[in-house]
Parts: sequence; structure tokens; C-alpha cells
Amino acid sequence: METPIEKQQIELVERKGIGHPDSIADGLAEAVSRAFCKEYIDKCGVILHHNTDETQIAAGHSIPKFGGGQVIHPIYILLVGRATKSFGDIDIATDTLALKTARSYLKNTIPNIDLDSDIILDCKFGRGSSDLSDVFGREGYVPMANDTSFGVGHAPFSELENIVYNTERSLIEDLKKKKGLNAIGEDIKVMGLRNGEDISLTICCGMVDKYVDDMGAYINYKEQLEDYVKDLVTKYTTRNVNVHVNTADNIEKESVFLTVTGTSAEMGDDGSVGRGNRCNGLITPNRPMSMEATSGKNPINHIGKIYNLMSTQIARKIATDLDGIDDVYVKLLSQIGQPIDKPLVASVQISVKDGVKFDSMRKEAEGITDEWLANTKKITDMVAKGELETF
Amino acid sequence: METPIEKQQIELVERKGIGHPDSIADGLAEAVSRAFCKEYIDKCGVILHHNTDETQIAAGHSIPKFGGGQVIHPIYILLVGRATKSFGDIDIATDTLALKTARSYLKNTIPNIDLDSDIILDCKFGRGSSDLSDVFGREGYVPMANDTSFGVGHAPFSELENIVYNTERSLIEDLKKKKGLNAIGEDIKVMGLRNGEDISLTICCGMVDKYVDDMGAYINYKEQLEDYVKDLVTKYTTRNVNVHVNTADNIEKESVFLTVTGTSAEMGDDGSVGRGNRCNGLITPNRPMSMEATSGKNPINHIGKIYNLMSTQIARKIATDLDGIDDVYVKLLSQIGQPIDKPLVASVQISVKDGVKFDSMRKEAEGITDEWLANTKKITDMVAKGELETF
Amino acid sequence: METPIEKQQIELVERKGIGHPDSIADGLAEAVSRAFCKEYIDKCGVILHHNTDETQIAAGHSIPKFGGGQVIHPIYILLVGRATKSFGDIDIATDTLALKTARSYLKNTIPNIDLDSDIILDCKFGRGSSDLSDVFGREGYVPMANDTSFGVGHAPFSELENIVYNTERSLIEDLKKKKGLNAIGEDIKVMGLRNGEDISLTICCGMVDKYVDDMGAYINYKEQLEDYVKDLVTKYTTRNVNVHVNTADNIEKESVFLTVTGTSAEMGDDGSVGRGNRCNGLITPNRPMSMEATSGKNPINHIGKIYNLMSTQIARKIATDLDGIDDVYVKLLSQIGQPIDKPLVASVQISVKDGVKFDSMRKEAEGITDEWLANTKKITDMVAKGELETF
Amino acid sequence: METPIEKQQIELVERKGIGHPDSIADGLAEAVSRAFCKEYIDKCGVILHHNTDETQIAAGHSIPKFGGGQVIHPIYILLVGRATKSFGDIDIATDTLALKTARSYLKNTIPNIDLDSDIILDCKFGRGSSDLSDVFGREGYVPMANDTSFGVGHAPFSELENIVYNTERSLIEDLKKKKGLNAIGEDIKVMGLRNGEDISLTICCGMVDKYVDDMGAYINYKEQLEDYVKDLVTKYTTRNVNVHVNTADNIEKESVFLTVTGTSAEMGDDGSVGRGNRCNGLITPNRPMSMEATSGKNPINHIGKIYNLMSTQIARKIATDLDGIDDVYVKLLSQIGQPIDKPLVASVQISVKDGVKFDSMRKEAEGITDEWLANTKKITDMVAKGELETF
Repeated sequence: METPIEKQQIELVERKGIGHPDSIADGLAEAVSRAFCKEYIDKCGVILHHNTDETQIAAGHSIPKFGGGQVIHPIYILLVGRATKSFGDIDIATDTLALKTARSYLKNTIPNIDLDSDIILDCKFGRGSSDLSDVFGREGYVPMANDTSFGVGHAPFSELENIVYNTERSLIEDLKKKKGLNAIGEDIKVMGLRNGEDISLTICCGMVDKYVDDMGAYINYKEQLEDYVKDLVTKYTTRNVNVHVNTADNIEKESVFLTVTGTSAEMGDDGSVGRGNRCNGLITPNRPMSMEATSGKNPINHIGKIYNLMSTQIARKIATDLDGIDDVYVKLLSQIGQPIDKPLVASVQISVKDGVKFDSMRKEAEGITDEWLANTKKITDMVAKGELETF
Repeated sequence: METPIEKQQIELVERKGIGHPDSIADGLAEAVSRAFCKEYIDKCGVILHHNTDETQIAAGHSIPKFGGGQVIHPIYILLVGRATKSFGDIDIATDTLALKTARSYLKNTIPNIDLDSDIILDCKFGRGSSDLSDVFGREGYVPMANDTSFGVGHAPFSELENIVYNTERSLIEDLKKKKGLNAIGEDIKVMGLRNGEDISLTICCGMVDKYVDDMGAYINYKEQLEDYVKDLVTKYTTRNVNVHVNTADNIEKESVFLTVTGTSAEMGDDGSVGRGNRCNGLITPNRPMSMEATSGKNPINHIGKIYNLMSTQIARKIATDLDGIDDVYVKLLSQIGQPIDKPLVASVQISVKDGVKFDSMRKEAEGITDEWLANTKKITDMVAKGELETF
Repeated sequence: METPIEKQQIELVERKGIGHPDSIADGLAEAVSRAFCKEYIDKCGVILHHNTDETQIAAGHSIPKFGGGQVIHPIYILLVGRATKSFGDIDIATDTLALKTARSYLKNTIPNIDLDSDIILDCKFGRGSSDLSDVFGREGYVPMANDTSFGVGHAPFSELENIVYNTERSLIEDLKKKKGLNAIGEDIKVMGLRNGEDISLTICCGMVDKYVDDMGAYINYKEQLEDYVKDLVTKYTTRNVNVHVNTADNIEKESVFLTVTGTSAEMGDDGSVGRGNRCNGLITPNRPMSMEATSGKNPINHIGKIYNLMSTQIARKIATDLDGIDDVYVKLLSQIGQPIDKPLVASVQISVKDGVKFDSMRKEAEGITDEWLANTKKITDMVAKGELETF
Repeated sequence: METPIEKQQIELVERKGIGHPDSIADGLAEAVSRAFCKEYIDKCGVILHHNTDETQIAAGHSIPKFGGGQVIHPIYILLVGRATKSFGDIDIATDTLALKTARSYLKNTIPNIDLDSDIILDCKFGRGSSDLSDVFGREGYVPMANDTSFGVGHAPFSELENIVYNTERSLIEDLKKKKGLNAIGEDIKVMGLRNGEDISLTICCGMVDKYVDDMGAYINYKEQLEDYVKDLVTKYTTRNVNVHVNTADNIEKESVFLTVTGTSAEMGDDGSVGRGNRCNGLITPNRPMSMEATSGKNPINHIGKIYNLMSTQIARKIATDLDGIDDVYVKLLSQIGQPIDKPLVASVQISVKDGVKFDSMRKEAEGITDEWLANTKKITDMVAKGELETF
């Protein structure tokens, strides 16, 4: 039995915000996969084989300055993967669709990028296996696992996990979008450390230069941001929380975290799919994690994606439905070539609170697990509809 | 206190061999960084700023067949990153050096790739920060952490970890290279599952078609490989081990894991840096892991790389020097802008065997940790010399 | 003395319209150079060294159909060349500016291309020589020729040249834009042959599928186009003119020249700078021609560009100002490293009408030539302002 | 009747040597097409549809120095075009074959390029029309012209044409290869001007730095080269010939034409197919010329290629077989969709020497023309076998 997370001495949690280069890569990969799913369904009635999980972002070069600077050299974005390009006599315009989807995603996610000048968007999609196309199409069919792979999920979020996750989400969705603090860029990295009862929250947030008139304004925005977060965290913990914003700033030397576009991909920070947040939105070295990239994988037979998403759903359902739980860990292991509803191992570990009897829970937990496994298509559908986040 | 790994019910361990597309990406990234380190030292006396950790591999298309098939569409490899291209009036030929290094690495690692026809090798290195160049050069200087990041390491390897790691290593270095079983390709994926006392080892190994005359030969080589591994694992465990090789093969349909070059990058499998093995050579979801890519990062101030490598070294030293240990976990957390020898947190967790008193060990473990931290340059030097593996 | 063009038995003239892939390449190259000129002047006061004349277009793949088809695989456009990226401490955002300019040019020139999905726009600009930057800046300075090269120009246009040139121009500017025949695509190739007194005009014009409902509409538009041209040519000649439109069409097999975007770059036709029209807008094998690409060359010291444009201006001025002329040919030859106003050879050949005395003209012609040569900067200014066509 | 070339006052002739960036592009395009022809014949029995005529070369960056410098940034070479990639169930490895062929061509043509480091070789071949594949295959079939296009050829070479052509050829094949003057690079541009009876020959020749120890050696090699050419030209003319070598050199400033690899593509000079020599190896503004790129076009139905090559062959045959000829010009004009052996116009113009009667020649000239037209396949075969130069 592992020590419950809240009782471990040291806990580390990280989240890369949606404008972090690695997250942009994840987001593009998943958006393109979703668009392919929709197009395949519209044109062929079924989702065809594809994996779009290899987006590579090579950073540009910019000269930010108060009041508005300039991107000097564009960000290079390469969409890579495989896709089924024809099905019977139906041609699927995968590459043009990918470009359109990617541009639309960038426009919505990083609105201060000028898509006409600040990016080079390239794409190289190989052809997917046509044999698989056939298999995917059959009604009532449970796909075979494409690999020997595993998924892991846990629930519930610890206090620190809630804090780290919601800090980034609230800065963008609430403080920036609703409350209008436009200076906040989308490239926010939140690193949380809990040492016993003390929490330290380090936030790196690239500011958007055109909304920041001068150093005074910059300092002011940083303080607003810090105050906002100090207030926010009280929703999630009674522990002591120290908040640090852009600690590498050197005000005297006028060296601060300013960007033209809101993302450091404009200047020196490259990005790749699968190197940032796990599918629950966090990086949690104290918890079991899978290395599999979830974003951009097809939601039909890519076992890493399906099992990571499903194990997280199972863990959350158990943690919600059952009382007296500290931590739930769910692990699913596939065997290549076997149906995905028949994992080689489906393991549920539950840490119960003192005095709670585990045995009484086992059956319920197993029931929840079996129910999800009996309905793998639900994960596929939720992914295709965009109901599950992947990073 | 966590349950020692050997006493946990379920343990999962994976290794992607050197010819797996993700490992090729890691290997290229690290080889290029090493070459840059050497060139910087030769020409400038110090290692200059660079990160070469964003290699992207887009799979080709091949038609393998018994006796020798053909790569139809080349593998596209894009080297991405940043590098310092000039230092005072010295120009550094980073891009031509990267190409030469990458070709040399591929030649040595995947000898059956025809470098004249089977790959397109492209490179896009942005300029590194010139400010950093200055900083890196100072004598006796301890670099500042480039980021708020952490590293984790553990020791000793569990039985399963030893099995998984050494299976891949021995298949290549011993069975293929020494014993001459040329049909073994470098793209080997080993997945180990321990369920209580039963170990299941699943090996996917792409065979090289020109060394396999027909289906009979293929079956024969698979059996040789299986027998070899069954024998090998007895060195590491007395538990029961089941070995499965290329379980997705369908002999009747003549659908087997055959390749022209020895890597599935020739056909449909893309690869990226940092998505495969951690710096200890394994993926271990039962152990704390960092998401940071280690390969290709500069060994001067890239804190993710340095702390991951260092924490692994510390853990191994502790596990070797101290008696009565089950598991050691070392975690190092940096703060951006602070010297790398002054981590914000340096945590050592030790699980001791029954009856062993932990307190007596604390001081020794702290001493080992302090010694490594006092000498961060040692990691840099070992990396530059190629003495530390990164994947 | 050469036989005047109108008296030669066979005359061939060709024009590739603005939507022909080679012309798109020319147009992009020149638009980017103009944008650079403007930016250099705005930021640095002088035009700095650049050549943007190597745009390469790799065709896409499309499935046109009556009523509106689809681009399946995008057109790949690579902007290549050199540019000065910094001047003192001023950075010039050449690459982002090039992307923005190229997109804007495409939008205006081929309006039916969907810029969000139908193109991949890439750019690779090397650094221009910084030594040259210095030289270019001096006031009153006559640049040195960058090469041993020549320019040739002729005037006036023959009847056939007028017909070929104006057919394409009028189809786009008048029949399509003013008279609203939207089905006309920009990819028009006009080939004129005069055999004695008989002129044959072959027009290939890609129709835009979304404006063409069915085969009946297609045939109708072709007839409109043919009638329009038959009428138009009477402005330029009294010779007999046969007009052929899309002669490769096979109506029974439903194989006609239909496009989604208006350019065959969407499907199979690649394009390059400098392979289409000379700077007078035509390809005229009966006339002396230079192979030098004019589009995209810098208008400061690129002698091929300057001499081609200047010799055409000189020839036109002579043909306009002097009476009794059949043909004027002007040839200018530079010597590398010598001032561009001091050509090694400046040759003017004039064919006079019967009875006209050539000697009386020599002086005037020399005067016109000397005036232009004394004012090379005028060509530079006209180019920078976009007053001179280059293809 | 045109003035015979030797009697015209001004004559200009240029040749870009095999190492000029435009010629490298031509050479790669044609080498790849030849390799495809051979592969198609070997595997399918017929030449399938392809055009490989869009190679783009983006220059690198180098630092040459006496004794041996370095390429700092590689030359980027993009092979572009279309190719038939399958024929029935036969797959053709066009892309890997193109890479292999291109590397082999570079190795043989520019031996001082280090292929492991100095180039990035990329390729993007779209799919050729599959309908055409079918057509090409039929026995005894005369292909239809793919376009309305023309070809022009002339013979014999003038004195100046012979001088310019043979100067470059002899410098490489004789002075460098046979006589061992290794310092001569392959990037030689020869510009010839005849003004009446005076010929001026300007040679730009990039020297290979590793074979040139110092400035003294450089000057010595230049003198050797100049002496060699002065001697050579006496074979072709009795006119006065001035020879200028690397006139832009500035010895005092140590600014001379030195290269690492022998081609200026290493440093600032981009290259494209079809912008250099016509298919007779020269640029001759005094002669009718076609703008069509010949190199890399398929030799089956690409009418520009076939007619340019054929008209040159016809002109040469007439000039050789018939006496009393000054100049022969042959023009062939196709009509799209018509058989290539039935040109719309086949025009032969002959300038005879004084006293020679033209009429007697007409029949013979027509006979030669008809014979070639009756056997268009001969051009195809000669191209496929590499018996016809294209640049």
C-alpha cells in the first residue's frame, strides 16, 4: 500500500499551459485528429486509421518591446503523421484539412500570433495502412490493440494538483478572457512544490508586449497576477502557499518575460507532442505515469491513448462514487493483437482512509472498471466529439 | 514509506531499443549535442549554449520481402534545435557538423539503412542566445538553472528492470553482433510485466529481410531469439518468466515483422526525442519519472538533463555504498535563475530492508548527495565525453 | 540587317498568364523584392542587398468538379533567396515580411485559392553579403555590376506580340473582372503563330469549377471566351486570325480543363522563377532574348535585371520618338566590377522602313541610350515603386 | 533572310559550366530523369510518365581560405517534380532512386563537395498521371504532344560559340582532369563577346581552396588558366581574342574567387533548372531560343524537350551534310493533343554562302527533317541512354 499522496513529504506537480510550445504541439495534434475523425465519419461513416501525433515546432526569433515588438523569423510548425487518404473511391483531403484545422486552432488558442507572417505551417502525412481501414469499418467490432502498451490514471486530484491545474486554467479563462487582463500570454508554466505543509507555486507567464506600455505596467500586471493566484488557491487548500511570478526577471537590466505573441515558441523554445502534460493535464512525478503521447493518436485502436484516457475515467468514477478513499490508481495493460476490451492486466489500487474497509469496495470498483471496458467505444466517441482533454 | 518495488503486486517496465524511431531520435539528438560540445571546446575552450533535443522522424515507406526488399519512400529526419553559431570572430559550422554527425550515428547504429537513398536528412538550427555564450565561458563559474524543473532517479534496478534492459542490450550486442545473428534488427521493444511472482516478457523485434531467406528461416530465428532470452533471464531472476516474441505475427497470412533496414521508421512509425526511455534506459511507470527529454539538451545549464542524470548517479552510488537498501529515490528541484548546485529541494527517500535502521544511513546518503551537487561540472564532463547514456 | 519581324515568314509568340505556375513564381519573387525595397528604405534609408528570385512551386493535387471540387493536397511554395537581415543595429524582419507579402500577392492574384488550406508556404532566405550593404548606402554612388551579363530589349511589339499579350491581359482584366465572367481562371497560356499572313492563336484557360455548373455551362463559357478574343484581335491586325480554346478538351470523355483554384499549380504543374515570360511579358523566339530571370533580383546592382529592363525602355523610347522604324533592338553588356552606367557594349540596331535613312537617326538613338545610362537610378526607383512589370 | 551570324557586328555567347548552380540543377534534373527511364524500362518495359525538371538549389554559407576552409551552412537541394510510382502491382521506388542518383551525380560532378556534411538533399515528387502510364505503354504508339510548344535549333556553331563551349569543357576535362590542375573548380562561367573582329572572353572560375596554398599560388593558377585558354582559342579562330580571368578579383584586399567545394552554390548563389544553357550547351541571344527547360522533362511526350533536341539534331545534320551553308535554323511547333510526329509547323531556314543556290538544298533539308520526325522514338532512346546533353 502506497503512502497517500497528501501524506507524502514532498510532492511535485507541473502544468504547461496551452501556449507552451509542447502544449501547442499537443493541441495541434489532437485538433487535427479530431478533424480527421469528423471528416472520416462524414464521408465514410467510420473513423479510419490515422495518427497525427508527431507535430514538431521549431522556434522563431522575435524582438519584443513595450508597446509592441515584432516577430523577425517565423515559427516553423511541421505536422507529421499518417492518415488514410482514400477509402474505396472516396478521396479524403487530409492534408488541406490538417492545414485549415491547424490555422484555426492557432487562431483560437494564441490569438496574438499573426498567421499571415509569424508561422510557416508545413505538413507531411504518410499514408495509413489500408488494411486497417477495412477493419475499422465493421459494425459492433472491437478493435485489436495496436501495440503492447499500458495506461495509468489516478484520482482524485491532490490539493496541489488542483492548485496547479486551476491556476493556469483560471489565469487564461477568467483573469485574461473574462476580466480582460490582455497582457497575459498563453505560455504559462506552473510548477508546484509541496514540502510537508508548505506549498510553493512558481509561475512563468509570458506577457504580450503590445498590451504592456512600459516597465511600470509590467510590474503592475505581475502584481495583479500574483494577487489573483493568492486568492484563488484558498479555494483548494488551507496550507500555506507562496506564489512566485516570473522569478527570473531582472527589472534593473530590463530583462523581463515579454513576448510579441504570447508564446515562447516565437523565440527559442521548440515544442513536441507528448513531452508535456499527461492526459489529465498535469505532470505528476509522484504518481505513476505513462510516457505515451495521447494527443493525436487515433481513438479507435491506439491502445496507449485509449487506456490512458479510460484508466483516468475509471479512477475518477471510483473516487467519486465510493466513500473513504485517499487515492485510486488504475493500470491497464494491453497485449498486441488482442481485443482492446480484454486487457492482459486491469489493476485497481485503492488507498483507503483510516478505518475504512477496503474489501467492501473491491466489488464496486471492479464493476466500474468492467463497465468501462465493456464499452470502449465510449472513449472513442468522447474523443471524436472533443469531450476529453488530452493534455 | 512506499512499498518496495519487488513487493508491489504489479510491476511494468518497458525499453525501446536503439532502433526504435523514438530512440533513433534520442540518439541523434544526443550525438549531435556531444559533437557540438567537442567542437565548442576545441574551437572556443568552453561549451557554448545549444539544445538539439527536437529531432523529428517522419516514417518512410518500404516493401520488405524475404531475401531483401526495398525502401520505396525515404525516412525524413529533421534535426531541430538551437546552437551558438559564432563566438567572437570564430564561426562554428554547427549545421554541417550536425549532418555529418547524424549520418555517422545512423551508419553505426542502423547499419542496414542505405544512407544514400533511404533517408532525407534535413536540419533547422536556430541561433542560441549570445548572452548565454558569455556566461558559459567564465572559469569556476556555476551556471544558473535555465528553468524551474526537476530530476528524479532511482536505484537499484529491480529484477524486472534488469531483465528488460539487458534483454534488448544482449540481443544487439551479444546475439547479433558477437554471435552473428544478423537477422535481428535494431528496432526491438521489450515490455515486461510482473504480476506477483510471474513475469511476462513481450519482445517485438523487426527482422532484417535480406538475412531471412523464407518463412522457415524466420520462424527459426524467432525460436533462436526466444531460447536466447529464456536462458538470459535466469541471470536476473528465479521467478517464472514467460517469453513472447512478435506475438502479432500471423504465419498463415505471411504477415510477420519483417523490415528492410531493421527499423520500423522505414514504414509507418514516426519518432520524436523524449518520448521513449528515461535516462536510465527504461520506462518505469511504477517509479517516479520526469517528463523532461534528456537527450540533446546542453549539459551546462539545462537543469532537466543535469538533475535527471545526477539524481540517477546519486541513487546508484547510495544503493551501491550502503547496505540493507531496497529502493532509493532521489529528487532534485531547481529554481530558475539560481545556481544549479543549490537546488530548491534535494530529497532522498530510502526504503530499507526489514530490521535495517534508516537513521544510520541518512548522513552517508546526504554526504553522497552533497558531493555530487558540489561538483555539477562532473556531469557536464561525463556527458560531453559520452560516458553517460541518456536513453 | 535583320529581316523586319513582320516580314519574316514564321513568327512565334507566347505568353504565360499571371496564374501560370511559372508566372506565380515570378510574381511572388518580384512582390517580395518590392516589399524588401520598401522596408529597407523605410528602416534604413537605402535599398540593401537581396535577391529573391528563386521561388519554387511544387504542384498540389486536386479533384475539380462542376459546381465546386476540392484541393486534396496543398501546393507547396518555397521562397528562396538572400536578404540583408540587419543593418547596424536595425533588424529587418525579412522572413515574416516575405510570408505576409506572398500571401497578400496570392490573395490578390489567384483569389480562388483558399490560403488557409490550399498552400504550404515555406521560406529559406540566406543572409546577403554585409559588405554590399555598406556599398549600397552611399549617396550619389553608381553601383558596380555584380556580374558579366547582358540585357536585350526590342520595340515596337509586332502585331502578333500585341495580340498575344493583350489577349491574356484582356481576358483577366476585362472579360473576367469587369464583365464578370468569373469562370475564367488566371492560368491562361496564349500561344501565337503567324505563318505568313495567317495567325493561329491557341489559348489554354483553366476554368474555375465552382462557377461552372455543368458541361453545358463549360461549353458556353468557352464559346464566350472565343468570341471575345475574335473580336479583340481585330484591334491589332487585319490578318486572318484563327482562335482555338482548350483544344485538348474531350467533351465526350468529360475531360476538360477544369480547376478548383484557377491555376494548374493545384494539380501537377510545378513552377519556377525565370522560366516564363521575359520582362516585356512575352516569350519571343524570333527576337534576341536573355535567359536572366528578372523577377526578384535586386534593382540596385543586379545587372541582368537592370539591363533587361533598361534596354526595353530604351528600345520603346526610340521606337516611339523616331519615325520610320520597323524594329529596334538594344543590347547592353556589363563587365563585372565596373560601374553599371558604363556598359562594356551598348548596341542599338534599327531596321528602318524602306526609304528611311538610318544615319539621321543614329544620333537621336544614341542620345536616348545615353540619357538612360546616365540615370540608372531611375530603373531602380521604378522597380521599387512597382512601375515596371518583370514578367 | 537573316544576316549570317559571323557577319553580324555584335555577337554574345555564354556558357555556365557544370558546377554553376543553375547547371547543377539541370544536371540533377536530367540525371534523375535518366535513372527513372532506366528503372521504368527495367521494371515495366516502358518509360512511364514523369517530369523531374524543378530542382531548386538554395545556396549555403562557407568560409574558404587558402589551404582549405569550411562549409558552415549546407547547400539545400530540393528535387521536385512528378513521377509514376506504381504500374499495375509494381511499385517504383522513385524517391529513394532519385536521392541515390542525385548523390551519385554530385559525387562525380563536384567531387570536392563532402556529401556527408555540405548538402541537405530533399525531395518532393508528386504522383504522375496514371492515365498517361497506360498510353505510354502501347507498342508502336506515337505519343501526343503534351502542350502547345516549340523547339528551335541551329547549326553550325559560330567561332565564338565553339570558343565559349570548348573553353569550359577543356578547362575541366583536359586542364583539370588530365593535366592535373586540381585548383580549378567546376563553377566556370564563360562569357564571349565578339565586336566585329575582336573577341573578348571573360572567364569566372571558382578555385578550390585546399589546392591553393596562398595568394602566390592563386595568381600562378590564374595565369596558367589564362595561358591555356589563349592557346586553346587558336584552334577555333584567327580573330584577335582577349582573355580575362576572374576580373573581379582584388589581390590587395585578398578578395579573390576562392571556394571550398568548387561551386558558388556553397556561398550565396542559388540555382534552378532551365535558367542556364539551352540544350546545345550555350546561351545565344543572337540566335532564336526557346525558354523551355529541357533537363528533367520526360523524353516521351514532353514536346518542349523533344522538339528542342530534335531541331538541334536536324540543324546539325543539315549543316554537316550540305555544302555552302552559313547558318541553319530549325523550328518545330506542336499542337497539344496531336501526335508528336505531326508538328503544326516544321520550318527550316538556311542562310547560304554567296553564290550557293538555296533551291537545290531544300529537298535534302526536307528529307533530313522528315526522317527525324518519322522516328521520334530515336530522340527518346538517345535521351534515356544519356547520349544527348541537355545543358
